[in-house]
Amino acid sequence: MKRIALLGYGTVGSGVYEVVEKNIDSVQSKFGVDLSIEDILVRNKDKYADLPHADKFKTSFDEIMASKPDIVVEVMGGLSPAYDYIKACIENGVHVVTANKDLIAEHGQELQNLAVQKDVALLFEASVGGGIPVLKPLQECLGGNSIDSITAVINGTTNFILSKMYNESMGYEEALKIAQDVGFAEADPTSDVQGFDAVRKLAILSSLAYGQEFKWSDMPTIGITDIDSDDIECVKTMDSKIKLLAYSEYINNELYAAVRPVVVSNSDPIALIDNEFNAVILTGDSVGEVMFIGKGAGKLPTASAVFGDILDIIQNKKEKSFIELRRDATIHKLWPKSSKWMIRLVGGDKNKLIQLLLSQFAGSELRIQTSGHDNQIHAVVQSDNEAELLGKLSSLDKSTEVDQIKYFLVYR
Amino acid sequence: MKRIALLGYGTVGSGVYEVVEKNIDSVQSKFGVDLSIEDILVRNKDKYADLPHADKFKTSFDEIMASKPDIVVEVMGGLSPAYDYIKACIENGVHVVTANKDLIAEHGQELQNLAVQKDVALLFEASVGGGIPVLKPLQECLGGNSIDSITAVINGTTNFILSKMYNESMGYEEALKIAQDVGFAEADPTSDVQGFDAVRKLAILSSLAYGQEFKWSDMPTIGITDIDSDDIECVKTMDSKIKLLAYSEYINNELYAAVRPVVVSNSDPIALIDNEFNAVILTGDSVGEVMFIGKGAGKLPTASAVFGDILDIIQNKKEKSFIELRRDATIHKLWPKSSKWMIRLVGGDKNKLIQLLLSQFAGSELRIQTSGHDNQIHAVVQSDNEAELLGKLSSLDKSTEVDQIKYFLVYR
Repeated sequence: MKRIALLGYGTVGSGVYEVVEKNIDSVQSKFGVDLSIEDILVRNKDKYADLPHADKFKTSFDEIMASKPDIVVEVMGGLSPAYDYIKACIENGVHVVTANKDLIAEHGQELQNLAVQKDVALLFEASVGGGIPVLKPLQECLGGNSIDSITAVINGTTNFILSKMYNESMGYEEALKIAQDVGFAEADPTSDVQGFDAVRKLAILSSLAYGQEFKWSDMPTIGITDIDSDDIECVKTMDSKIKLLAYSEYINNELYAAVRPVVVSNSDPIALIDNEFNAVILTGDSVGEVMFIGKGAGKLPTASAVFGDILDIIQNKKEKSFIELRRDATIHKLWPKSSKWMIRLVGGDKNKLIQLLLSQFAGSELRIQTSGHDNQIHAVVQSDNEAELLGKLSSLDKSTEVDQIKYFLVYR
Repeated sequence: MKRIALLGYGTVGSGVYEVVEKNIDSVQSKFGVDLSIEDILVRNKDKYADLPHADKFKTSFDEIMASKPDIVVEVMGGLSPAYDYIKACIENGVHVVTANKDLIAEHGQELQNLAVQKDVALLFEASVGGGIPVLKPLQECLGGNSIDSITAVINGTTNFILSKMYNESMGYEEALKIAQDVGFAEADPTSDVQGFDAVRKLAILSSLAYGQEFKWSDMPTIGITDIDSDDIECVKTMDSKIKLLAYSEYINNELYAAVRPVVVSNSDPIALIDNEFNAVILTGDSVGEVMFIGKGAGKLPTASAVFGDILDIIQNKKEKSFIELRRDATIHKLWPKSSKWMIRLVGGDKNKLIQLLLSQFAGSELRIQTSGHDNQIHAVVQSDNEAELLGKLSSLDKSTEVDQIKYFLVYR
């Protein structure tokens, strides 16, 4: 008998309950193990009084620990009290499965070390990419590879908003409102739209992929709040889209890792990842590029990943996650490679803006497009790296003709 | 110390050697295990006399077994003598990793049962999708799902040929020749171009996904040898491509499973899977659609998958593959659902062909396009199922106006 306790019974928690209940018979027949959800921790158990399993709801964590669960599934989210609860579980020899990316990005290494010491499992497949199998394929199937880069569209909320803005020519605020109405965005969308959710997932992925603990707060993070309809119109003329990309790559033994909106050609597979879908591309030295696509959030997809972790624990498989240091690298704050950039200049007379641009990017491969507006242009320029680009943009910014400059990395 | 013996040293075998050697230190530091390739079975060891590891090459399987390997990696391909060797390994308590889809599709269930009985691992991630992690994500990460369908582009050779025919307007023979020149097709391409390679992989995937042993020889299999430039031109007018699809789905408690060329819209992600790339889409009741993309063959991608299996064995993880019977289903020979089909008629006068088509598909949603040719038309028709379609096509075939009829399922 494996006794499971759920911490939290929101969207994901109720999904986990459903998926576990549905699989009790098959787990029994396949592994000879009786699986049972014994307790569910919630704040207010009266809310669930009408459910057939109302007796499982508890409001005290101590009470739940007293009934000695084998596995605790943490699906409350947030750092507190989730951190204390998970730590207590590990210290008491209880296996933990969590979907909590905030917690793993913040305390993953420490909790993982504790779990190794206490010989229990701490698994968190659902924390990155929701239902998409990513962490296990990365750590196990691709274990013979050195990972060179990670490219991911890994926040469904921002991807949904950007898809709406692109496909239905909406403004940001209108698209955000719809995302909130259909449940893809929280009432307070800060963590998603500012890129914090994506960068936490990128930090988890990067730490596992490169065998080194990376802090999400060291990674430059730009969200989508400054993207407007004009940006979208500009990239449409380039047969491209804007995607919020979570990207990390080893370049000259240093890591570039950032979340930022980038311009992606419509002929790139990443451009097809629309709405609530997520995609993770891993590049390994043996396997080349492998791409995983699916729903990155939601009740049952997330529960599917949590259940995969439970199956690992049932079969007594403990992964070494956050593996030991393989490389020691700092994080580049600026894109260090030669690349194309889309630049938008808003200001005075179109022709003067063009002259200014030509003066700064004289030697560069330059493609200038003027839109319907008289006072703005957009261009694709080539630059050796982001620092060089910023130097030139800063010169442009000094001109009285220029009111606003926006720039986006053009992704491969 | 884990002693590995390689059976075979072709493209994949030499790749496995390379990947194992590269990872010896990291395996030691991560798992405290010394990994060593001790023996390599080949037919003619003189061929390898100049290699630094020339002393490892042996020509006798008995000699290799006498030195008591812990893990045998079978990368010879084919049924004989691979089957006898693998069986002997399992019976002698030696773990086996294989990339041999022919063997697993033919004898997987039997060998798996023997492996369970002898308490050894038989792992074959590389047999489907080359380097792409598919079998482990399916069996472990998605273990809480009932799989509803599998959609796969899973033969790189045919995908390369179809890509060449489409992108460079080549004929089949010319594209095949190029595939052979660049090493994507064998001198005898039968197994690939007739769809046998793909259907064997589909049988392995389907058996694991639906928990029942399916024989590849029960699955209707159509290759790409009959596809000509005119077919390609026709689908281009529909903004679509032809892809060789390996597909299985539970429909009304029966399985439809087949390999066949289908028409795929260019807006479908599957249309982006070009050249030697493979894709596998799994639909689960909890997770929805997840898609895995990568290189389905080649030296190092395949070696990457083999090495992932070796890591599992090092960590003493034995999967229950070919899990026990969950459903008992026969295989539909014909597409059982309402669908669109592309039909090509070649024969007499275009207008008479149109009249014939209208007479048979009067009630159907019908889209007829005439190409540059005077004696042929193509159309998209709607039909309740393939049997109904075949009935109507058989009536058309009786007309003296019709010389040739071709038809393709239009995929979703």
